Amino acid sequence: MFNEVFNHWIPTKIYFSKGISNNLKDYIKGKNVLILSDPFIKDSGIAEKIGDSLTNKNVNYFSEIEPNPSGDTVDLATKLARDHKTDCVLGIGGGSAMDVSKIVACLTTNSGSIYDYYSGGKRKLSSRKTQLICIPTTAGTGSEVTNVGVFTNLETNVKMPMVHDELWPDIAIIDPELTYTLPAVVTASTGMDAFCHAIESYWNKESQPISDYISLGAMKLILENIENAYKEPENIEARTAMSLASLLAGLAFSQTRTTGIHALSFPLTSEFGASHGTACSISLPPFIRLVGKEKSKKMEMLAKFLGFSNVEELAQSIYELMSKMNMPLRLSDLGVEEKDIAHIAEVGLKAQIIQLTPAIMTQETVEELLLSYL
Amino acid sequence: MFNEVFNHWIPTKIYFSKGISNNLKDYIKGKNVLILSDPFIKDSGIAEKIGDSLTNKNVNYFSEIEPNPSGDTVDLATKLARDHKTDCVLGIGGGSAMDVSKIVACLTTNSGSIYDYYSGGKRKLSSRKTQLICIPTTAGTGSEVTNVGVFTNLETNVKMPMVHDELWPDIAIIDPELTYTLPAVVTASTGMDAFCHAIESYWNKESQPISDYISLGAMKLILENIENAYKEPENIEARTAMSLASLLAGLAFSQTRTTGIHALSFPLTSEFGASHGTACSISLPPFIRLVGKEKSKKMEMLAKFLGFSNVEELAQSIYELMSKMNMPLRLSDLGVEEKDIAHIAEVGLKAQIIQLTPAIMTQETVEELLLSYL
Repeated sequence: MFNEVFNHWIPTKIYFSKGISNNLKDYIKGKNVLILSDPFIKDSGIAEKIGDSLTNKNVNYFSEIEPNPSGDTVDLATKLARDHKTDCVLGIGGGSAMDVSKIVACLTTNSGSIYDYYSGGKRKLSSRKTQLICIPTTAGTGSEVTNVGVFTNLETNVKMPMVHDELWPDIAIIDPELTYTLPAVVTASTGMDAFCHAIESYWNKESQPISDYISLGAMKLILENIENAYKEPENIEARTAMSLASLLAGLAFSQTRTTGIHALSFPLTSEFGASHGTACSISLPPFIRLVGKEKSKKMEMLAKFLGFSNVEELAQSIYELMSKMNMPLRLSDLGVEEKDIAHIAEVGLKAQIIQLTPAIMTQETVEELLLSYL
Repeated sequence: MFNEVFNHWIPTKIYFSKGISNNLKDYIKGKNVLILSDPFIKDSGIAEKIGDSLTNKNVNYFSEIEPNPSGDTVDLATKLARDHKTDCVLGIGGGSAMDVSKIVACLTTNSGSIYDYYSGGKRKLSSRKTQLICIPTTAGTGSEVTNVGVFTNLETNVKMPMVHDELWPDIAIIDPELTYTLPAVVTASTGMDAFCHAIESYWNKESQPISDYISLGAMKLILENIENAYKEPENIEARTAMSLASLLAGLAFSQTRTTGIHALSFPLTSEFGASHGTACSISLPPFIRLVGKEKSKKMEMLAKFLGFSNVEELAQSIYELMSKMNMPLRLSDLGVEEKDIAHIAEVGLKAQIIQLTPAIMTQETVEELLLSYL
């Protein structure tokens, strides 16, 4: 049932507590702090509230991080970090802000541009000297406990993950309170993204028992709580459970990476404008059915653990859950047409993680799968 | 169901693979290696086989680590480590050898004796410079993934845990092959010790969701495999599962510590000569019944997850399992008499961990509990 050869390493210190983000002073080393966020987190006052609580620190802000952040944005934020001799980078937000904060913290004391180290660059990052603290404001990405950043090269329009041990945050601060104001549509898509992280870790060819048990917990919490969090934004119990689930899912996939669902999400995001969570979860029911056939014993165990009689019931239930949360259910809902299928398969197959799916993933099989939920 | 305020940190890199212990050269930094073990591991050839595989390293051995190791033994091993300018300490064995290796690696570049830092000593350990690798040869202790060492002060005859972040091993190597030669009686006692780690983490007042899910996995694996490992020493599947379970249990209790079962084991070990695993598991059924009353919802969930209809059935089944493995079942089997009960309770209550039990633990309640399985 379990892979019997595996490694496990998560060096990040995790602190989970409601309200903890208002009280971070004692976690921060040094004087000069740079807070990185997207414009929404800046406008909502979340970034400033955290910054203001850091009495006796010099706090600067960079709040121009866009969805699917580019290397160019990383370089801009890095310039600010260097100018202010930053001791600690705080990344506050969804995956985009946290991903940028990871590489900016590295580049503060590594010269050059992100492109020197990534997307064709040949230089190697030396040890990160600047402290890195990540604080999620959604319940989905799990980026606070991974060594991955995903960036887009604007010149080539390629969105690609960068994986490096220097990208592990020193500290992950999980404060469910920060998610209370998430719009329902974001609650749904980021929450289902977390479900994808967990299930893709569980069925991954590189799966392993430590992350397997953690991912089971994540999936159970999401199925039990996401609808309540979607319907009642201030349901504290549901929000806390979703923040926890996202953390667990992040811990799980940090060890295994993801699979075909994430691989196929890249073209759906960059070319059809779907949010990351939507672009992932749209593929969830068909992938559950596919993997259910290929890895039936382990998938049956999952279905039972989650309270279903079999894998088909689990797939159907996820489909209905997404429907109740008004999420796109078919590729055509994202504007995909039959003529696009071959291209989506082609782009998805370029991501190495697609081969971590426990099923044969070729141009032909992926096209067939995509057509089944066009 | 879950504690909503928690921290989590396990910086140790884990490598799990059959046969990996024969191939450790690439994991070791520096030239001078000191291998610490007990005489049994030395005589069995395990320590030497690992040492011989480290071609191009200067390997020294210290093989005089006794059960419930003393601070004096630590100081002896430290002298050797300093004399040989040790770059890497390899602790190979059960909890005793790994615990000693942890503090010896610290003391190699911290002057003085263990007693300067522990058991009344006032000095503080500075950062460990010497690499520390722990390799379990039993499936039980979990010490390879904790920041705890338990030592005995021979002058005061007090056995007490030392907890320090410098004691986290850099690397834990888990090689199930090393357990194939474990005698059946040790398989039983160390395996049930791991079960205690997992369940004491699960019901702990300091329990938390990450370790909860990991501990569930540990308990399931132990109940499914310990009897096979006991009866068929070379049952590879059972041995692998038990090594994995011990690792999972270690990860779990590294975050929560243990509870009353471990607290009461200290006098049973030091004064009645029981092995650590036996001294722990003898208290398991009565503690399961006690905690089942105090924390009924979480304990019912555990019983169901493990395939039982209720907590009483779980307790009874553990009792029967221990009986099948010819383990002592009542305190009188260890030579304890009614007149000893007050003293055992008194000594157990001195260990702070006893108050992490989710039940009232006083001289009166503990005596009553102990009498129930005299």
